[in-house]
Amino acid sequence: MHLPNSEGDFYRKGDPPMPEVMKAVIKEKPGAGAIYGDKPIPQIGSDDVLVRVRAASICGTDLHIYKWDAWAAGRVKPPIIMGHEICGEVAERGINVKALKIGDFVSLESHIVCNACRYCRTGNGHICENTRLIGVDRDGGFSEYIAIPAQNAWPNPPDMPLDIAVLMENFGNAVHTAFACDLSAKKVLVTGCGPVGLMTIAVAKAIGARAVYATDISDYRVDFAKKMGADLALNANKDDVISQIKEATDGEGVDVLLEMSGSPQAIDQAFKLLKPGGEAALLGVAGKPFEFDWDHHLVFKAATVHGISGRRLWQTWYQARGLIFSRAVDLSPLVTHHVSLAEFDQAFSSMASGESGKVIMTP
Amino acid sequence: MHLPNSEGDFYRKGDPPMPEVMKAVIKEKPGAGAIYGDKPIPQIGSDDVLVRVRAASICGTDLHIYKWDAWAAGRVKPPIIMGHEICGEVAERGINVKALKIGDFVSLESHIVCNACRYCRTGNGHICENTRLIGVDRDGGFSEYIAIPAQNAWPNPPDMPLDIAVLMENFGNAVHTAFACDLSAKKVLVTGCGPVGLMTIAVAKAIGARAVYATDISDYRVDFAKKMGADLALNANKDDVISQIKEATDGEGVDVLLEMSGSPQAIDQAFKLLKPGGEAALLGVAGKPFEFDWDHHLVFKAATVHGISGRRLWQTWYQARGLIFSRAVDLSPLVTHHVSLAEFDQAFSSMASGESGKVIMTP
Amino acid sequence: MHLPNSEGDFYRKGDPPMPEVMKAVIKEKPGAGAIYGDKPIPQIGSDDVLVRVRAASICGTDLHIYKWDAWAAGRVKPPIIMGHEICGEVAERGINVKALKIGDFVSLESHIVCNACRYCRTGNGHICENTRLIGVDRDGGFSEYIAIPAQNAWPNPPDMPLDIAVLMENFGNAVHTAFACDLSAKKVLVTGCGPVGLMTIAVAKAIGARAVYATDISDYRVDFAKKMGADLALNANKDDVISQIKEATDGEGVDVLLEMSGSPQAIDQAFKLLKPGGEAALLGVAGKPFEFDWDHHLVFKAATVHGISGRRLWQTWYQARGLIFSRAVDLSPLVTHHVSLAEFDQAFSSMASGESGKVIMTP
Amino acid sequence: MHLPNSEGDFYRKGDPPMPEVMKAVIKEKPGAGAIYGDKPIPQIGSDDVLVRVRAASICGTDLHIYKWDAWAAGRVKPPIIMGHEICGEVAERGINVKALKIGDFVSLESHIVCNACRYCRTGNGHICENTRLIGVDRDGGFSEYIAIPAQNAWPNPPDMPLDIAVLMENFGNAVHTAFACDLSAKKVLVTGCGPVGLMTIAVAKAIGARAVYATDISDYRVDFAKKMGADLALNANKDDVISQIKEATDGEGVDVLLEMSGSPQAIDQAFKLLKPGGEAALLGVAGKPFEFDWDHHLVFKAATVHGISGRRLWQTWYQARGLIFSRAVDLSPLVTHHVSLAEFDQAFSSMASGESGKVIMTP
Repeated sequence: MHLPNSEGDFYRKGDPPMPEVMKAVIKEKPGAGAIYGDKPIPQIGSDDVLVRVRAASICGTDLHIYKWDAWAAGRVKPPIIMGHEICGEVAERGINVKALKIGDFVSLESHIVCNACRYCRTGNGHICENTRLIGVDRDGGFSEYIAIPAQNAWPNPPDMPLDIAVLMENFGNAVHTAFACDLSAKKVLVTGCGPVGLMTIAVAKAIGARAVYATDISDYRVDFAKKMGADLALNANKDDVISQIKEATDGEGVDVLLEMSGSPQAIDQAFKLLKPGGEAALLGVAGKPFEFDWDHHLVFKAATVHGISGRRLWQTWYQARGLIFSRAVDLSPLVTHHVSLAEFDQAFSSMASGESGKVIMTP
Repeated sequence: MHLPNSEGDFYRKGDPPMPEVMKAVIKEKPGAGAIYGDKPIPQIGSDDVLVRVRAASICGTDLHIYKWDAWAAGRVKPPIIMGHEICGEVAERGINVKALKIGDFVSLESHIVCNACRYCRTGNGHICENTRLIGVDRDGGFSEYIAIPAQNAWPNPPDMPLDIAVLMENFGNAVHTAFACDLSAKKVLVTGCGPVGLMTIAVAKAIGARAVYATDISDYRVDFAKKMGADLALNANKDDVISQIKEATDGEGVDVLLEMSGSPQAIDQAFKLLKPGGEAALLGVAGKPFEFDWDHHLVFKAATVHGISGRRLWQTWYQARGLIFSRAVDLSPLVTHHVSLAEFDQAFSSMASGESGKVIMTP
Repeated sequence: MHLPNSEGDFYRKGDPPMPEVMKAVIKEKPGAGAIYGDKPIPQIGSDDVLVRVRAASICGTDLHIYKWDAWAAGRVKPPIIMGHEICGEVAERGINVKALKIGDFVSLESHIVCNACRYCRTGNGHICENTRLIGVDRDGGFSEYIAIPAQNAWPNPPDMPLDIAVLMENFGNAVHTAFACDLSAKKVLVTGCGPVGLMTIAVAKAIGARAVYATDISDYRVDFAKKMGADLALNANKDDVISQIKEATDGEGVDVLLEMSGSPQAIDQAFKLLKPGGEAALLGVAGKPFEFDWDHHLVFKAATVHGISGRRLWQTWYQARGLIFSRAVDLSPLVTHHVSLAEFDQAFSSMASGESGKVIMTP
Repeated sequence: MHLPNSEGDFYRKGDPPMPEVMKAVIKEKPGAGAIYGDKPIPQIGSDDVLVRVRAASICGTDLHIYKWDAWAAGRVKPPIIMGHEICGEVAERGINVKALKIGDFVSLESHIVCNACRYCRTGNGHICENTRLIGVDRDGGFSEYIAIPAQNAWPNPPDMPLDIAVLMENFGNAVHTAFACDLSAKKVLVTGCGPVGLMTIAVAKAIGARAVYATDISDYRVDFAKKMGADLALNANKDDVISQIKEATDGEGVDVLLEMSGSPQAIDQAFKLLKPGGEAALLGVAGKPFEFDWDHHLVFKAATVHGISGRRLWQTWYQARGLIFSRAVDLSPLVTHHVSLAEFDQAFSSMASGESGKVIMTP
């Protein structure tokens, strides 16, 4: 049973009584699909908050788990509540939690880190050696409630639109990638125009890139890239990417590559376009090793390359917040679909179609 | 015919008269091998010097050209004088040359750069888009004389040993690689213990690395690595490299990788040993694309990787000189063989044996 | 007498014959003022170009020399032709000059560097130990012609407006200062809104600053700062700078300071506003030592501070060109006065009034 | 009364019973001096440890408080237990503390930070806006016991000598300063050879500095600097520092300045010796604003300067530990005096004499 904590701030006055069970999207056993079922409302520890979920969005990772591909089968241990892009309200707080109040509107950082390892203790929590991802390594937030360490609940202004608040986690990947290179007055190529790639285009423009070129293999996404600010967006299956971007850059190529596709073909093409001495940030994952022209793309080119993992904890959140609050970046065009949590199957199929931006579910 | 320049400083007083022809190691036509033949002494332009070669050393690149492998066949246009690791004395100087005098003892930078492209004009001559390598793209220095732009002739103290002066070009690769990462108090892995790898071990120790681990697949080179200062040197064909280096680093792996082998197996092993957030500098070339675990070795690891091309012009030369003059690095143990230029075939075969350090030829 | 060079490209066909003398603004002897007199047209060396001046602008340094203050008296050796912000056309070229053609429209870099010292040879020509400034250490360009090393003549598109081309040198100071710090999504304070400060505001906005605050002690310049893009511009003599900028930054202060005033009061105020861990670039010169709160402004604050000297040769020119060509920065509002070179006295008095942007003179 | 915590691990078996009161060096009221008196043993919170002090050392800050100078009068609120350089054993631990066990041998980080402000949350705890210094802002460790957050207790190997463990806090200042600049193969000037300056000399040598020059105004400390590894150590009151260091650097000056003195004269001299484009890290505090040649020392010189505050939390501790464990730095020669805590007056007078290294007190 749920009991008020010692400070008696279990509910705000007038809140309905806390129920005992909640609805959730559950990967119940190995194999494709998921169910919409009941789960007990989770208990919180002394440093945790219980968040009443107000919106959730779907990410490529969720799709892998939903479809149960090889990666998912190797990593995820059902039964588990899915979902890691979440916003909601603080419904309960542990006895040690001081930075948040009941009712605070928060976005969730999906990586639960240990605060104790060498990486956490030196400002590198994004590579914490004990990191656990909600919705992957433990219960996530495609549900009515989620319990999570208070430090993972990032407070938003109460009037931030749900559609923005729910995207902050995913936006953090874009922000982390774009800030990894010096983009000031640089010509930038973004490969891969899924939602994170699209956000990255917007960030690159907002933080001073001189021009942003984008590639994808879907016309829908190529068009979307233009809407998000790309100066030139090309379909790598139809356009002559190399010659068009060479032409747009006076034959020089690009200063910076932001790789969001994980496609070996796109990566090869992008490095051909990267100038000698250029810089690249890599977020896209390929799924397995692939053949890469190490000599020409890295060594002779004198390239500098940064692998990007998650978000800087918590630097990326400050940067992301700043870009949103100052209206330097507007994420609202990215949201193309809204469904209820119960209609999660429909949400996954929209996402899988390749013809969507972000799909938002509300409990 | 060779005429004195307008300042009359063609020869130093007492020098023997300049001959009309010289001996040289010439790749005369496509195919394996080379000949020892006659060539006219080259003419210099107004910004050039003519250098009387006093010593030359052999590099892996020379071996590729000698054997005439696919890379050589695609790049080199015979007939050409081979050789790019050269020291000697200034025998003539062009009318605009002020920084050097006849008789100055110089080591040669092998990359002739244009001074005019964007890279040259911004302190990045090492990625000059018009660079030409002596002994590869134009006549080199396995000969009695070589004409070269004066800026490529780096002055040494007159009493610097020939064995050191001749190695300065090659040493520059090691210095450039080691200085590309922050090594201060770091644990460093050097993969590949050919001559440049061996020099890199010595540089890493000299500039503050806490420990240097080295791998190769030749016992001869593994032993050599220990002589050059490696704290631990392993034979990747015999030793359990992963577990031994993990053990030596309290299970953490290394902070920095200096990749000098170009071997896909060594690269894979090295990235497995690189800590999350680690840094790598890559000088070794693989010869062709290979399968690489992009996701784990770069993206998830949040690694930062620097491709290394040639030497920083001329920052690396200042650094290299400083390390030698201050006796922080001693290159003399690296020289294992001396032969005359006429015996070049023997020099190449020593070098090809894998059981040599540097092989020095004197005209 | 002026003779065509060996390539016969002395004039373009149809050009009027080259005269023997030219008009120039000359500081003839120690003391205030200058004269407008005759000088022989300068001879060029083999690596030089002769530039027919098309426009010149006035800088604070020129004013010091005109008024003959203590700094000028200690540095300048009359007689000398004044002026270092110059654009014009190539009228002659030395025999070694290949990168420029007769008729090319060029802006001049004012620092003549040696290309031979340690700084020049390592991409740090801006701190060349043998640098000589035109119009200060040797004849400048307030004249009909100027001879200058070809590498100092930066080619512009033929249709670049004179008012922009003439400002490129001065603009370079602003670009160098702004690029010295990471401005991406940062809150930036610019102290001092003279012409270079004003340009710096525009650059900071163009390369991704989230907000730019500006201070000066002249209402004219404070208004000008708003026109150039400052989000907030304050008169330090009238406004409560500290409290207003604190308020604008949620009490946090600024991330970055770009110091263009050289005023000890402004500097003290600015460092009070700089956040802990903040970054500053310093271009303004104070004229003499002053009392500074070292402990609080640097040590306890953990500030990082960059002194800025001249322009990066030639990185700054590429950056400046990029900002202009892409229309990310528009310098045209800065030009407030045009006079003929003969009216130089009037130009200096406009500049001295403090109520001008840039004053352009045309021969 | 002291009660065991919920895990019952109040004492290790066989420990003597915990007393109720302890001895401490107490600044009881404003004014010079301190008393040796009784204090209750402090209670710990759920995230704290109680440390039984085994050794304490004296720092300049303690001397300011002891003498009660203007700074101390403005900052310290008596009564307070003095002391912030402390090592000891964990005697009790709060209920949430997992990383430490009773009996662990620890050195204390003296800055208690909030873990919640923007700086703490972005890996910049050294500039936490809510930092509180033990022995200055709250009770310190010149006493038999001290309660402190567990994260401030850095575990040492059980056999680390007391004389080393007690110096780790102070050593951290030296490590933070030395690592703030790139010292690899650089020529480094250390101004100020008090204990932190002396440690900095040792660190600079250990992490790859090519040469370390040191200055002080005490012969005792100049001699000590040589013992700690300085290649050249000069008395600024007697030697011609400028000319001797110029001579030692071939007229070029130093690449890096590590400023540990806070003396305006030393700072002026040091910046005269710093090369154009050089780098400086500033730890010394002057006590009040002073006249500084901003134009020549920062702007024209294109210097980069880093203010240094405390230690990087916790990066500096990892670096410091690494240097000690690997024997790259040996701190033992620094300890010149040992006294009991009761003899604190004698300890302060040794420290004040200027003819001491570190003075260690044991309870």
